[in-house]
Amino acid sequence: MGKPLINVLINGYGVIGKRVADAIVRQPDMRLVGISDVVADWRIKMALMKGYKVYASVVDKVDEMKKSGVEVEGTLDDLLRSGGVDVVVDCTPAKVGAKNKGVYEKYGVKAVFQGGERHEVAGTSFVAQRNYEEALGKQFVRVVSCNTTAICRVLGGIHERLGIKKARVCIIRRAVDVWESGHTGIINTVVPELHVPSHHGPDAQTVIHDLNIVTMAAKGSHNLYHLHMAMAELRTKASKDDVIKVLEEEPRVIFINGSDGVEGLNSVFEIARDLGRPRGDLYEVPIWIDSISVSNDGYEIYLMWATPNESNVIPENIDAIRAITETETIRSASIEKTDRSLGVIKKLY
Amino acid sequence: MGKPLINVLINGYGVIGKRVADAIVRQPDMRLVGISDVVADWRIKMALMKGYKVYASVVDKVDEMKKSGVEVEGTLDDLLRSGGVDVVVDCTPAKVGAKNKGVYEKYGVKAVFQGGERHEVAGTSFVAQRNYEEALGKQFVRVVSCNTTAICRVLGGIHERLGIKKARVCIIRRAVDVWESGHTGIINTVVPELHVPSHHGPDAQTVIHDLNIVTMAAKGSHNLYHLHMAMAELRTKASKDDVIKVLEEEPRVIFINGSDGVEGLNSVFEIARDLGRPRGDLYEVPIWIDSISVSNDGYEIYLMWATPNESNVIPENIDAIRAITETETIRSASIEKTDRSLGVIKKLY
Amino acid sequence: MGKPLINVLINGYGVIGKRVADAIVRQPDMRLVGISDVVADWRIKMALMKGYKVYASVVDKVDEMKKSGVEVEGTLDDLLRSGGVDVVVDCTPAKVGAKNKGVYEKYGVKAVFQGGERHEVAGTSFVAQRNYEEALGKQFVRVVSCNTTAICRVLGGIHERLGIKKARVCIIRRAVDVWESGHTGIINTVVPELHVPSHHGPDAQTVIHDLNIVTMAAKGSHNLYHLHMAMAELRTKASKDDVIKVLEEEPRVIFINGSDGVEGLNSVFEIARDLGRPRGDLYEVPIWIDSISVSNDGYEIYLMWATPNESNVIPENIDAIRAITETETIRSASIEKTDRSLGVIKKLY
Amino acid sequence: MGKPLINVLINGYGVIGKRVADAIVRQPDMRLVGISDVVADWRIKMALMKGYKVYASVVDKVDEMKKSGVEVEGTLDDLLRSGGVDVVVDCTPAKVGAKNKGVYEKYGVKAVFQGGERHEVAGTSFVAQRNYEEALGKQFVRVVSCNTTAICRVLGGIHERLGIKKARVCIIRRAVDVWESGHTGIINTVVPELHVPSHHGPDAQTVIHDLNIVTMAAKGSHNLYHLHMAMAELRTKASKDDVIKVLEEEPRVIFINGSDGVEGLNSVFEIARDLGRPRGDLYEVPIWIDSISVSNDGYEIYLMWATPNESNVIPENIDAIRAITETETIRSASIEKTDRSLGVIKKLY
Repeated sequence: MGKPLINVLINGYGVIGKRVADAIVRQPDMRLVGISDVVADWRIKMALMKGYKVYASVVDKVDEMKKSGVEVEGTLDDLLRSGGVDVVVDCTPAKVGAKNKGVYEKYGVKAVFQGGERHEVAGTSFVAQRNYEEALGKQFVRVVSCNTTAICRVLGGIHERLGIKKARVCIIRRAVDVWESGHTGIINTVVPELHVPSHHGPDAQTVIHDLNIVTMAAKGSHNLYHLHMAMAELRTKASKDDVIKVLEEEPRVIFINGSDGVEGLNSVFEIARDLGRPRGDLYEVPIWIDSISVSNDGYEIYLMWATPNESNVIPENIDAIRAITETETIRSASIEKTDRSLGVIKKLY
Repeated sequence: MGKPLINVLINGYGVIGKRVADAIVRQPDMRLVGISDVVADWRIKMALMKGYKVYASVVDKVDEMKKSGVEVEGTLDDLLRSGGVDVVVDCTPAKVGAKNKGVYEKYGVKAVFQGGERHEVAGTSFVAQRNYEEALGKQFVRVVSCNTTAICRVLGGIHERLGIKKARVCIIRRAVDVWESGHTGIINTVVPELHVPSHHGPDAQTVIHDLNIVTMAAKGSHNLYHLHMAMAELRTKASKDDVIKVLEEEPRVIFINGSDGVEGLNSVFEIARDLGRPRGDLYEVPIWIDSISVSNDGYEIYLMWATPNESNVIPENIDAIRAITETETIRSASIEKTDRSLGVIKKLY
Repeated sequence: MGKPLINVLINGYGVIGKRVADAIVRQPDMRLVGISDVVADWRIKMALMKGYKVYASVVDKVDEMKKSGVEVEGTLDDLLRSGGVDVVVDCTPAKVGAKNKGVYEKYGVKAVFQGGERHEVAGTSFVAQRNYEEALGKQFVRVVSCNTTAICRVLGGIHERLGIKKARVCIIRRAVDVWESGHTGIINTVVPELHVPSHHGPDAQTVIHDLNIVTMAAKGSHNLYHLHMAMAELRTKASKDDVIKVLEEEPRVIFINGSDGVEGLNSVFEIARDLGRPRGDLYEVPIWIDSISVSNDGYEIYLMWATPNESNVIPENIDAIRAITETETIRSASIEKTDRSLGVIKKLY
Repeated sequence: MGKPLINVLINGYGVIGKRVADAIVRQPDMRLVGISDVVADWRIKMALMKGYKVYASVVDKVDEMKKSGVEVEGTLDDLLRSGGVDVVVDCTPAKVGAKNKGVYEKYGVKAVFQGGERHEVAGTSFVAQRNYEEALGKQFVRVVSCNTTAICRVLGGIHERLGIKKARVCIIRRAVDVWESGHTGIINTVVPELHVPSHHGPDAQTVIHDLNIVTMAAKGSHNLYHLHMAMAELRTKASKDDVIKVLEEEPRVIFINGSDGVEGLNSVFEIARDLGRPRGDLYEVPIWIDSISVSNDGYEIYLMWATPNESNVIPENIDAIRAITETETIRSASIEKTDRSLGVIKKLY
């Protein structure tokens, strides 16, 4: 007889939530109990179309959802009380997860929060390849944001092997998500985050505690993928090949090549769609191999990558579930399972 | 013993070609022989990654493609001479198909051209639901452009049932395709097509010969989907419900609803991605049900729809193959096969 | 001794208000008393930099404005009570003007409203060239929106000379104003106005009472200028030259030429800036002369123009002031004064 | 009797050239002989509309220009041979200036090149506030690009007063100029410059020879202004106030304030237009005062600014003319003359 499946509920069926839901369905060791939300429009109706069970995150919304034609199974509260949920993946909007924490504590259910919450909400921040073990058995864990995840994968790998003295990263963020682009976007502008350092640097330190890093950020007039421009002073001399070798061995990062015609975020998105995954998702962080450079003295490196804001944290959510439930205690084993189920690749072509 | 499979080659692995290739693979009655192109960059390498056999459309490009790491099976010319291809789907850039026609004639192979070619290149223009029978047994057929296909599906259906006296359509086009958006896009502008009528009106008449239609067009600062704003004078009085009923019965059109939060092309794209098809493709033409209006006298109707420029012609290409090879002589039977294989829907949720 | 100057106050120093203020300063028969607003940020500080006197539109905002460094002369209420204002040009956000009307009535001051208000607020809607006389001596008048003004100038002229049986206009609107583009814009989408007809058609009828017109509209991913695509059935046969002749004689419209490289709204904006007016403003409606076409039977015409959303209503505001104060009772005389003061042209080069 | 005026010709009437032409007209010590170009479309016709004399840069273009209605005074070659030009400001497209150099040498005329040319073309690169004296009496000088000019103004000032150990700047560039935005823009993407360091760092060193600087750059989906995110390690400890004080004393930089609602490049452009200069131009580099930060140890500073790509080099071109003609040998005197004539400010409001 096999192990029992992990029963997972997605609370918040937005950009991240819907992708985690689909990823759960692909895991042999997990079962999607359903999804929970408060909206009553096309977004939730698409979940119904997929056959997902829908719960109301707050009882006040049940009527509105039903009136709009959404078949509601019950409330989140009732569901959690019933004991049928082992892990909630909380993908509610930023700061809402903090409010939900009390409910999860009340019912003794484990929860995975997202990067929109402060580190303190979970106490443990998570990027599988960096600190899987730190999350083992915890009630709460926080998968950091797409930007922080990308930084931890790329610079974290370099830091472990080559030693980073100080990292500086400038981030050109996508302004809003695709579904919001019709009412809260930006046009023909760049909007800087005037607080320096931006939160991404300190956030990376919640995962890689000894990483010396400062970040600056601005929003660009586009709605898909962030672009990171990184500069890292090293403790030891390195060549371009050294950097490439480190990144080749790092999971969930791949190389793209400008000389192959991959000119910008638009090309990366087209590549992602060609990969055939749902929604054209990209779980890997694609690094422009031709951007990797080393200063004359060999002590500073430069590189650029795209951060697939909608999807690069999906594998981390899956790993986080295994870590906090201790259904898999070995980092590489979980990563391998997740990556196989999602079709994560190490080499593009 | 079953019927032999139709051997199909895709010449031109671009926005349309790569989607037709994937669609061919899903047809029980077709076999993808391979794809043929002249480029040597990431675009063709993604085809290799999928396991498609790659041919060089012109012999001069073989060396460059090989040098770039593309495993080339041979040239298009050799392949056609070998007799292993029944139908070429020519998805080369506009006007190149006309030049290729001689090659197809030389080897007596059937070909499906795209809307970038003039009607005269094929002699028969095609939208499955409108004139499937016209293409039966022809050597050449031309699947009209995404815009014309959408017009023929929507207004064609209305014309057949309600009788259009004169149709007027204004088109806000996407400026360029995603993969080109990094070098030939437009920014913060609208670029009108100053020749009035735009070519779309006359083009629709190559399929629906008695449709009185005039079109105007402009390019918007976006890269996905066209928006059509249509006004049609009717020969008979009609109500909004009459229009809805006609469109409900029309294949490959679906309704979307602004009151459900589907605010713009961005929402439509998010819906399309949620449908889970490769690349987030949408084969249907989504019509805003809340945009359907009727003039006070009941003799003019108004409606708006999105035209999924990358993918709405894919089903038509499949049907066109069956029509010219006469492997299926009944319109509805081919449409049904195609739609089942591609997961085309008639109702969103 | 000359006539006394008309004392004008601008209430609402936004996109339109600040331009009307600058235009008032250029009129020999008007005096800018000051501007009134409720904001305390850079927008109002730029007014101070110009030397304009600033009033608080509501008393509650005085403290906040002063705290932010804005030198406030007093409240709008006090100013109006003092009797020093003959005309208020109300450029407050849509629907706020309706609320302000009571104040203007209380103090017996005349007011010019903008197109964001309903026709009923003023009772008289206004485009100088179309119905100047209708506004003579009225207490309130409403300058219609940029879109409606453009339609009234172009189609109104054609209607008067050639007789329009039915006009159909599709409008690709700019999504938001430049100053808002950093937080309420749209990205990579088109957002249709699902209510058909859009308000522009009925609005044009508040000025040209016998114009049969229907309009459809959508927002494009840009922030400057609307594009209008117009189709007009005529009561009499006309040639392209007939249409050109009518428009050549119409004030405040000019021709632009695609064959001269004027490819899109971006080119028009560059031309406008080259004209050297403040903010790169364009008071005229530029029509693409190469877009003017006539149907084969000569009874329907087609044309496209750009609508400079920020500035084409500025001359109308100036004329409206003269009309309601009856300081100039002859339409052409007021238009001529306004156009001379603002440098309005009839021919580009 | 006054000094004779400096006779200046603008070769290349594009984004920079037309602005330099207008600036020349405002100088009491200069005379605009005319402008020279090769195009025959609306761009050059706007010059005629202003009353500028137009020459053909190459004799082959005379006929085409005349046919298009451009009144051509003669050829550049004839004009230079005549001796009526003291200085050519070469604003031709990148790399064309290098080809023109021979002509200027042949006729012994002085020339100011732009940043699109390599440093070696002129031998002396120029930012007035940094190295005015270096250009005195030279035949050729090169005004560096908008980006390099901004870096030299801001970081140059800090380097002179506080000592920069190493500067790192990430640049989000506007993709194309407004007039090109209808055919060579980019959409919904960011396009990185994969060569690291980008050329801006080495270019700044052609002006500030001892500045240790590295730059990375990417193109954003917008067409106005670049955004610079700068990080500078200092040789001495500094506070935020120290940085502010340095920049307050630096000519041609001003402060803007996010807490005043100046949220992004769009706000800066709106402010620029409110200033009332031709084309909404901004000659100053606006720095977000709230972005200025200092690392905990006080040895690294961070700041962000907008670079008005169309206009911030205009004052430098004027100064460069005075420097090479030695009509003004004192740096501050020339800067003061230029800034007064153009209305350059040191404080916004």
